Amino acid sequence: MALWLVRAMDSSQPIGVFDSGVGGLTVVRALIERLPGESILYFGDTARVPYGVKSVATVTSYAVQMAQFLLDRRVKLLIIACNTIAAVAAQAIAALSDTPVLDVIAAGASAAVRATRGGRIGVIGTLTTINSGAYEQALRREREDLFVSSQACPLLVPLVEEGWLTHEVTRQVAAEYLAPVLAQGIDTLILGCTHYPLLQPLIGCVAGPGVALVDSAETVARQALRLLADRGLGCAGGKPRYEFYVTDVPLRFRAIGEQFLGRPFDHVQVVPW
Amino acid sequence: MALWLVRAMDSSQPIGVFDSGVGGLTVVRALIERLPGESILYFGDTARVPYGVKSVATVTSYAVQMAQFLLDRRVKLLIIACNTIAAVAAQAIAALSDTPVLDVIAAGASAAVRATRGGRIGVIGTLTTINSGAYEQALRREREDLFVSSQACPLLVPLVEEGWLTHEVTRQVAAEYLAPVLAQGIDTLILGCTHYPLLQPLIGCVAGPGVALVDSAETVARQALRLLADRGLGCAGGKPRYEFYVTDVPLRFRAIGEQFLGRPFDHVQVVPW
Repeated sequence: MALWLVRAMDSSQPIGVFDSGVGGLTVVRALIERLPGESILYFGDTARVPYGVKSVATVTSYAVQMAQFLLDRRVKLLIIACNTIAAVAAQAIAALSDTPVLDVIAAGASAAVRATRGGRIGVIGTLTTINSGAYEQALRREREDLFVSSQACPLLVPLVEEGWLTHEVTRQVAAEYLAPVLAQGIDTLILGCTHYPLLQPLIGCVAGPGVALVDSAETVARQALRLLADRGLGCAGGKPRYEFYVTDVPLRFRAIGEQFLGRPFDHVQVVPW
Repeated sequence: MALWLVRAMDSSQPIGVFDSGVGGLTVVRALIERLPGESILYFGDTARVPYGVKSVATVTSYAVQMAQFLLDRRVKLLIIACNTIAAVAAQAIAALSDTPVLDVIAAGASAAVRATRGGRIGVIGTLTTINSGAYEQALRREREDLFVSSQACPLLVPLVEEGWLTHEVTRQVAAEYLAPVLAQGIDTLILGCTHYPLLQPLIGCVAGPGVALVDSAETVARQALRLLADRGLGCAGGKPRYEFYVTDVPLRFRAIGEQFLGRPFDHVQVVPW
């Protein structure tokens, strides 16, 4: 038992990151850049992706299964890298263990509150994320007097996966989704889905120079750095290992995944759920 | 054993229809219209949809699980109402039992061969369906000298699910996907995904009046009628029952499902896989 407790606090243990698919690799990319000594286990539910329109019960059930898989491999920190999971299952994940949990919604809300000048914030995300109201709640926990305007953008994920990152059709779709949000005079826009950062140049054009775009991958990596330092669990030296678990290797997996990760894949293992 | 054999041939047993989600309800709709006395069990894997980019192994594993669920409920005929499943898992499904199996690809290929005047056929579908080459093989089995041009159209399913059936963006996307197929001078176009019939007016405009559109839902219903009659298993009288099993009730499920089914849903039961 004593041995277990000592091992549970071992700074050489990996960070666990999980997502409905490959979008959460943007978080892995930010972690590799900011915490280059840390080992990372990534889990992407590529067989059952997307989560963005599934019911709360199903998202929670699948997310708990992934989190438990990573906890069983004794990660020292869990990062929910999927906005939809963070929106509806963050409490269920936190209740699984004493392992600290960070998530992209809490991180994105913090970053937006720091970024806004006039307190008028827009949020875009999947249907399930927007319907949950999780961003609005997280934003108001940080600051009560904010104006928040939210919009679900179901077509943006398929457009990213099709690789139409700068296509005229994508610009039209983004303009149509963003019109009601921009009409509210927002000064900050949260990219509330891990696929959206790949559309950052296009969304920036549509939103215009007066709107700051917030991507939570960077923020959650900074939060991880601080949390591990505070608990004496940071690992700066040594050679980190990166392992990627997925439930399927779908078509275009490598091409799309490496776009999010920003480097070639190694050590991809399939867990056939 | 004798009792089981008698029961196995009972014409009052339902027809089993399954699909990756709600698209296969177009087949149920055609069956209800053409075989109004038949009871139907439908299974849609709404938690794990879409199948269109998953690997062959994962599609096969999920499809076999659904087919077995229906076989355990003693259906007299199985209909694979999903082009992706038909493309990669039809043999695995047929090998499960002696129950006859029909599928939308064989049906669509037959209908296209009857429809074509000049022997030049286009096929559109999901990535996995098109990559499999299943339509080309089915077409050439029917007639060797056909010219076939195929094109994956990954964005059309999300556009249908967003309800943008007549949207200018959808027209542009369809025009871009169809351009290389239409450039081949096809006279017949197979709508090789159960979502596409909802875009039939728009695709018809893009393809022009010289191209016949083939939707396999009608054809597979006609094949079912003939097969059941040939085997003395047709059920013309009595009050049919319709039961719908799904693995999740996602957002917009009822609205989208009823669009495919063409009538309100009853008796929807969730099987949480």
